[in-house]
Amino acid sequence: MRHFDLCVIGSGPAGQKAAIQAAKLGKKVCVVEKKSVVGGAAINTGTIPSKSLREAILHMVSGRRLGPYTDPYSGVGEGGGPAGRDSRIQDLITWCSRVISAEVEVATRALLNNEIALLRGRATFEDAKTVRVEDEGGRTEILSADHFVVAVGTTPARPSFVPFDGVNVVDSDALLKMPRLPRSIIVVGGGVIGTEYASMLQALGVRTTLIEGKTRLLDFLDSEISEALQYHLRQAGMTLRMGEKVVKIEVIDTPEGARSSDDKMAQATLESGKTLVADCLLFCIGRQGATEGLNLEKAGLHADDRGRIQVNERYQTDVAHIYAAGDVIGFPALASTSMEQGRVAACHMFGERVESVPNLFPYGIYAIPEISMVGWTEDQLTKEGIPFEAGIAQYKEIARSQLMGDETGMLKILIHTESRVILGVHVIGAGATELIHIGQAVMAFKGTVDYFINAVFNYPTLAECYKVAAFNGANKLRHV
Amino acid sequence: MRHFDLCVIGSGPAGQKAAIQAAKLGKKVCVVEKKSVVGGAAINTGTIPSKSLREAILHMVSGRRLGPYTDPYSGVGEGGGPAGRDSRIQDLITWCSRVISAEVEVATRALLNNEIALLRGRATFEDAKTVRVEDEGGRTEILSADHFVVAVGTTPARPSFVPFDGVNVVDSDALLKMPRLPRSIIVVGGGVIGTEYASMLQALGVRTTLIEGKTRLLDFLDSEISEALQYHLRQAGMTLRMGEKVVKIEVIDTPEGARSSDDKMAQATLESGKTLVADCLLFCIGRQGATEGLNLEKAGLHADDRGRIQVNERYQTDVAHIYAAGDVIGFPALASTSMEQGRVAACHMFGERVESVPNLFPYGIYAIPEISMVGWTEDQLTKEGIPFEAGIAQYKEIARSQLMGDETGMLKILIHTESRVILGVHVIGAGATELIHIGQAVMAFKGTVDYFINAVFNYPTLAECYKVAAFNGANKLRHV
Repeated sequence: MRHFDLCVIGSGPAGQKAAIQAAKLGKKVCVVEKKSVVGGAAINTGTIPSKSLREAILHMVSGRRLGPYTDPYSGVGEGGGPAGRDSRIQDLITWCSRVISAEVEVATRALLNNEIALLRGRATFEDAKTVRVEDEGGRTEILSADHFVVAVGTTPARPSFVPFDGVNVVDSDALLKMPRLPRSIIVVGGGVIGTEYASMLQALGVRTTLIEGKTRLLDFLDSEISEALQYHLRQAGMTLRMGEKVVKIEVIDTPEGARSSDDKMAQATLESGKTLVADCLLFCIGRQGATEGLNLEKAGLHADDRGRIQVNERYQTDVAHIYAAGDVIGFPALASTSMEQGRVAACHMFGERVESVPNLFPYGIYAIPEISMVGWTEDQLTKEGIPFEAGIAQYKEIARSQLMGDETGMLKILIHTESRVILGVHVIGAGATELIHIGQAVMAFKGTVDYFINAVFNYPTLAECYKVAAFNGANKLRHV
Repeated sequence: MRHFDLCVIGSGPAGQKAAIQAAKLGKKVCVVEKKSVVGGAAINTGTIPSKSLREAILHMVSGRRLGPYTDPYSGVGEGGGPAGRDSRIQDLITWCSRVISAEVEVATRALLNNEIALLRGRATFEDAKTVRVEDEGGRTEILSADHFVVAVGTTPARPSFVPFDGVNVVDSDALLKMPRLPRSIIVVGGGVIGTEYASMLQALGVRTTLIEGKTRLLDFLDSEISEALQYHLRQAGMTLRMGEKVVKIEVIDTPEGARSSDDKMAQATLESGKTLVADCLLFCIGRQGATEGLNLEKAGLHADDRGRIQVNERYQTDVAHIYAAGDVIGFPALASTSMEQGRVAACHMFGERVESVPNLFPYGIYAIPEISMVGWTEDQLTKEGIPFEAGIAQYKEIARSQLMGDETGMLKILIHTESRVILGVHVIGAGATELIHIGQAVMAFKGTVDYFINAVFNYPTLAECYKVAAFNGANKLRHV
């Protein structure tokens, strides 16, 4: 029976980084992956596919904005024939596949370069230190380890009242396998995944309705930013149904006269009595921890009713030598934070000092428009009674966004009224997920608004927004 | 006679920021601009036009890279007929004009909002405290001021041996007014302007030859980066003639059988004996300070033989109350640094404390590929005997560049061997001018490589390069 210092279950971002960190500390490590390729949802079904789809869509959108360039696909989504729509989604999928393959290769090589054993198969705990790995051909290996990281990720929840059929009613994993782009779609659930896909589909010209039970989208964001997001989505033509609950989902025969190339459509009935019909319904409420089949009980652990595992701030479960990281532990379930969780877990279990500052973790939302934030929101500061002023830059004020033909964004920095330190940065618009890291660095060093006032920025850049926002905030502070 | 606390001559980036800074300090300020629109070369002939051209070209180029999308213009530059080439450059110019108008409006409004008097006309010193402004209609106003900022910028040098005709032989100001895109071009001078335009023309499909007297392009860059630049330009199909001097430039009759739609071509003879022929020659060696006509002598000043004015580190000339800023004082002649010079000059003259850290000024080169740097280069560190290690990230290692279909870039951080502080950051590739500001912030706070190792980056972003480079550098440090 092989024995390892660390056995990692799952090869997504959390698992990869935990394994690599432990290997770098000289430990003997294995990674168990049940799929035929490594990478988890991040590479294979979630982050990378959706982001490469988004990149391709953005290219088309910017083509429309950059006046002189005709877009070979313009109008195809709305007015074009089904042939056009088919070829378009096939092209997008081909493009995604290329990126996915490249990323799988990078991830696989990273594991092998660090001499990490990669075991293909399904892991099941035999006891708290022993795992059985069974591959698709039924071959099994029993192995033991001193430490474990459970990083099995999540799968879309598939409640029984939703008639998933892969065509008219789909989950987010199935969306990218759809044979053709629908003319219209109902997206149920305005979390990160639902919002990202809804915004992309709308940009592709699909008539999109987004239904969310809460009264605003992504309510962990600063409220000014989620308000701006909702405004932009509506401007782009999306229908938002906020504070609405879906009580019934059906696949129905296409009504007489309905504009659809299919003989079936999806119908959603809302608690408020409304009935919505569209070519397709994308169900995005809830993801379930993929812990079924792990036999957690044998290890002395259990998952909650959503399949999730509870951990402490070092990602340790109730069983001290078993850690959990990534989507399986819940919010924020972003690839970036999952990587960090994996790294921190591996350092902690082997007594390696690690600095990790969760309040400097950035959140990146790859919707159209893009959103990112780091630090406090206005609501949080107000609740805690911390006095602040907000400095705002509208993208339209800076040359770079004129050049890009994208003038809808904004960047906001929250400044402590007395110490002038930066408490939070919130960006919506092109490049948000990159830009946030400038503010994050300044916050990490407890920098003040004066850093941005004195810094020289390349011209023209989006980064100049920091300077504009700093002047705006400093002016307000002067008048406090 | 009107009297001002500050009279700024020139309304480019340096003049604008000097005027606005003084106005914010409550001073009475005027700006004298000889052109009918404000903004100087940055908005009207240089930075913005070239960057908006670049943005449009990049869009086309990325269209080719993003597999699924056909580029409506692909092949037009090389194989297309003259009609195609005409419409393309016209489209680009229309696009640029829209951006220029918007920027002129932003700049004008910024001056007026700060209650700065805008005087249209040519300024001439009468004495060290008095200036005569004469507009195109011959109306004159004499005004006096306690302080001056000379921010008149530069114009392309037009040596007498170059037969400029605006068609076959042009300077950079005339390039964007060309009626059609040439099939082939010789760019003389591999400074920032020559390199930027050469790379854009090459990307547009123009057969481009770049001639530079020095043995490498942009020799203020880290040599690994300028080497990479040269490599990429050659890969893109450009011919580089390094260490070559042009001794003769002529407009000749199109030789029999030459592939040109014009009856004239440009011919350059090199000192080494080579003769080059192309549809067009762009002369980019040297810009001349636009100080002629200012009557500097009356103010007790003089310009050097290139029309430039010498200043101290606070941008003060030999006459204490007269400052000079922007391109007219020479290197680096970037809009970003010019703004800072204007701001620092205005603060200094009115006794306002100002923090300015020139060694944290970023340089941004908007070539294709884009380049940016901050801090020390390897050559400088080696010369000064400062021990360092370089941490490198190749764009192809990170997911974001896969998504963008751009895998040629690299990011390098230079790390002090003992203190681990970041000494310099060098980036070549997409987003370089934005990315550099993350490193700049960390450097400003004297941060170490460990900042990047511990920071969480959004996934996927180009910013992740910092983490990859940090691990690379830290690994090398461990083995020192």
